[in-house]
Amino acid sequence: MNQSNQAAPAAPRTYPDAHDSDPVRLGWMVGAPPPRDKIISFTDGSFNTFPKSRWALSNYRQLVPTVAVARGGPVHDLPYALRDDLDAVTCTPLQPSAFAGPMTWEESLYANYTDGIVVLHKGRIVYERYFGVLTPDTAHIAYSVTKSFVGTLGAMLVADGRLDPAAPVSQYLPELAHSGFGDASIRDVLDMRLGIEFSEDYTEPTAGIWNFARAGGLLPQPPGYAGPGNFYAFLETVAKNGPHGQGFRYQTAITEVLAWILRRVTGQPLEALISHHFWQPLGMEHDALLTVDSLGTAFGGGGFNAVLRDQARFGEMMRNGGRAHGKQLVPPEVIADITRGGDREAFKVGGAPTIPGGSYRNMWWVMHNKHGAYSARGIHGQAIYIDPTAEMVIARFASHPLAGNFNFDPTSLPAYQAIAERLLQG
Amino acid sequence: MNQSNQAAPAAPRTYPDAHDSDPVRLGWMVGAPPPRDKIISFTDGSFNTFPKSRWALSNYRQLVPTVAVARGGPVHDLPYALRDDLDAVTCTPLQPSAFAGPMTWEESLYANYTDGIVVLHKGRIVYERYFGVLTPDTAHIAYSVTKSFVGTLGAMLVADGRLDPAAPVSQYLPELAHSGFGDASIRDVLDMRLGIEFSEDYTEPTAGIWNFARAGGLLPQPPGYAGPGNFYAFLETVAKNGPHGQGFRYQTAITEVLAWILRRVTGQPLEALISHHFWQPLGMEHDALLTVDSLGTAFGGGGFNAVLRDQARFGEMMRNGGRAHGKQLVPPEVIADITRGGDREAFKVGGAPTIPGGSYRNMWWVMHNKHGAYSARGIHGQAIYIDPTAEMVIARFASHPLAGNFNFDPTSLPAYQAIAERLLQG
Repeated sequence: MNQSNQAAPAAPRTYPDAHDSDPVRLGWMVGAPPPRDKIISFTDGSFNTFPKSRWALSNYRQLVPTVAVARGGPVHDLPYALRDDLDAVTCTPLQPSAFAGPMTWEESLYANYTDGIVVLHKGRIVYERYFGVLTPDTAHIAYSVTKSFVGTLGAMLVADGRLDPAAPVSQYLPELAHSGFGDASIRDVLDMRLGIEFSEDYTEPTAGIWNFARAGGLLPQPPGYAGPGNFYAFLETVAKNGPHGQGFRYQTAITEVLAWILRRVTGQPLEALISHHFWQPLGMEHDALLTVDSLGTAFGGGGFNAVLRDQARFGEMMRNGGRAHGKQLVPPEVIADITRGGDREAFKVGGAPTIPGGSYRNMWWVMHNKHGAYSARGIHGQAIYIDPTAEMVIARFASHPLAGNFNFDPTSLPAYQAIAERLLQG
Repeated sequence: MNQSNQAAPAAPRTYPDAHDSDPVRLGWMVGAPPPRDKIISFTDGSFNTFPKSRWALSNYRQLVPTVAVARGGPVHDLPYALRDDLDAVTCTPLQPSAFAGPMTWEESLYANYTDGIVVLHKGRIVYERYFGVLTPDTAHIAYSVTKSFVGTLGAMLVADGRLDPAAPVSQYLPELAHSGFGDASIRDVLDMRLGIEFSEDYTEPTAGIWNFARAGGLLPQPPGYAGPGNFYAFLETVAKNGPHGQGFRYQTAITEVLAWILRRVTGQPLEALISHHFWQPLGMEHDALLTVDSLGTAFGGGGFNAVLRDQARFGEMMRNGGRAHGKQLVPPEVIADITRGGDREAFKVGGAPTIPGGSYRNMWWVMHNKHGAYSARGIHGQAIYIDPTAEMVIARFASHPLAGNFNFDPTSLPAYQAIAERLLQG
C-alpha cells in the first residue's frame, strides 16, 4: 500500500503530534498483562487506527501470521562514521504543506512521525536514530517498499530472459486470462500502466484496496465475510476498465500479480527469492519476514518487515550498481534501467504531485532530480532513498497518521536533498 | 506441551510410516496457489492432524502470530567434524515398543519421524541431517523444549536472589492468589510439584490442555467461543486439587505461571529475556520466535521455534557449564542444580516410565543414567539432549504421529546412548 493519486492538500494538523503520539509515552501493550485500555488488538481493527498504529507498525508480526525471509552466513559489518552536524541542516518544505517555514533535519523527523532512520554516506552510517518502540533489532513493516523488492526481482528475470516483457500476463498465469490483468504485458505490470478496476484511495471506505487487504489477511475479516479468502482469489475478481500501457496508475494489486508471476516462473515462494538473492548474500543482521494470507502466500505488495540497518544494506547494494561483498547480486542493466526511469508522460497521469517530472520503473519511484535519486516508498512514511550523486542511502520507517506519501513528501524530499548536499560538501 | 504420564503402550503402528508421511512426498502447500487438497489451514484445525502436522511443525509461524527472539552480533561458527560411522551404530529399543529387535541409528531416525537432527561432539558437528520440509534455515516448533528455556531463566533469577524459591506464587502474582497456583512455592513451580486441576492427557478431548491451547491461540477458537482469551485469563481459572510439593505432575500451565513470574520480576517479555541471555550472546544464525496469544504474550510452555543448529548451540553452552565464547551466560550453580536433578521419589508419581529413576529439575528432565545426561523434551519428538560424559549434545526436531515422549523414547534414548558410547570410543 502506498501513494494515493490525489493532489497534496494543505492539511491542517488534526492528529496528535509525534511527541503526543509516541507509543512509549502512551504505554501501549506494556505490562503482564497490559491494562485493558492499553491493549492493541488485530481482531477489532484498532491496530490500524492512529495513534495505536505507531505501536502496531513495529509489531506487525505479533498481529498476523508471517513467513521468514532467512538471512545467512556471517553478518556483514556496516561501519560507522557518525556525524553531529546533520541535525541542524535546514530545508524548506514543499508547498502546500502544514509546515510553512524552514525546518531542521531533526524537526523534519518529528514532522514525519519517523520511527527510525539510517543515513549511509559512501557505505558508512553517518546518522542513525530510533523513536518510540522501534529498536535496531525490531522489524518494522515496510509496506509498499516491498514492491521495489518484487519489481527488482521481476526486472532480474527479464534480464535473465526468463520473463518476456512483451508477453501478456495470461501467458504465465492462465488463471488471470479472463481478469482485467490477462492481456496486460509484463512491461506494463512492472511499470504499473494498467487499466484495471481497483481503487487505491485510502479515504474511500469502499475502495478495492480494503477488500484486497481483507482477502490478504492484513485486515480482519468481519463475521460472515464471504469475499475472496486469499490473494489469488481476489486477483481473479479484478476487472478491466480501460486500455493497458497508457498512464501510470498506482495499484497494489498489480504488484501482487507480479509476485504471483515470480512464483510461477521460478517455482519458489517470494520469501525464498528475497532470501536467496538479497537476505543471504548481503549478510543481513536479522531474518526479515513477510505477512501472509490464509494460504501462506506472502503479501508482495506490502507485507515485508525488516530491521532498518538491513533495509539500508539493500539500498547500498543498489547504489553500488547491484554489487556487494564481491558479488553481482543485481545485473548492472537492471540498475541502469531503474535509474534511467520510466515514461515521464505516463507518470503525469497518476503520479505523485510531489515528484513533478518523476517516473515509475520496475516498481521504483524515480525522482529525475539533479542527483538522479530513486526511491522505494511505502504508506505512512517507509522509504529506501538512493542518491547516487551524493553517494547516499536513506532507510526510513515511520508511522505518519495519514496515508500516502504526498502527506509527508513536503517535509521529506527537501530534507533528503539538504542532507545530500551537506554530504557532498564533505 | 509434552509428556503424558501414561504407561508406555506396545502401540501397534496405525499411522503411515516416516516415508509415507513425508511432507515433501505428499506435496503439501506446493504451488501458487496449492491445489485444494494440498492446503493446510489453521482455522479448520487440519494443521494439527497427522500427517499434515509433519508440514505444519516446520511452518508454524505462517499459521499463527509470533514475536521475534532476536539474534545479535557476529554469527559464531559451529565447526564440522562429520563422521560416517554413526548411521550404522546399533541399539536395542526399550520394551514395550512397536519395534522389537535391534535397529541402526539411521533406522531410529525414521522410526521417530525425525525432521532434523544435529549431534555435537566436543562442540563440533559430527552428524547433521534434515528430512521432509525442514532445512538448516527453517525454524521448527520446539514445543515443550521451550519449558527448559523458561526453567533455566527462572533458576537464574533464583541464583541472582531476585526470585525467592520459598516464596508463594501469590507474592509475585497477586492475580493468582485465589487460583490453584497461589500458595505454591517458586521451588515447586520450577520442579512441577503442584496439586492443580489440569489434565495433560492428550488422548482426552476435554483435557485442560486443549482449553489452554485455545486460550493461547495455539488452536483455533470455535465460533462463539466464550472461554478465556489469553494465557493470563486461563491461569486464573485453574483450581487446586491437592497439596503442593508432593509428586511431580507434568502440567504445561505451570510453566506459563513461571513465564508470567519472569515477566513480572524482570519487567521484560519472555522473548526479550531469551534474546538477551541466549540468542544474542550465543551468536545464533537466525532469529528465533515464539507463538503468542491475543495479547502478544509468548507461549512459555511450548511456543518456541528455532533452527536446529541454534538449538544445538544452546545445548552446547549448557554442556560447557553455562559458558560460551568467553562469557558466563548461566551461573555454574544453575547448571549444577540441574545436573544434580530433582526429587527422584517425587518423579515416580507422574514421571516418564521410560526414564526409571529419573527426575525433573528447573524444567529439565534428568536421566540419572551412567552418563549424567539431561534433556529438554517436547511433544512429537523435540529434544535437546546433553550427555556430559560423552561431551555430546543432540538437538532434534520431529513430528511423530503420537503425543508424548513415551511413544518414541523406546527408540530414542537407547539410540542416544549408543551414539554416546561410540563417541566415547573416539
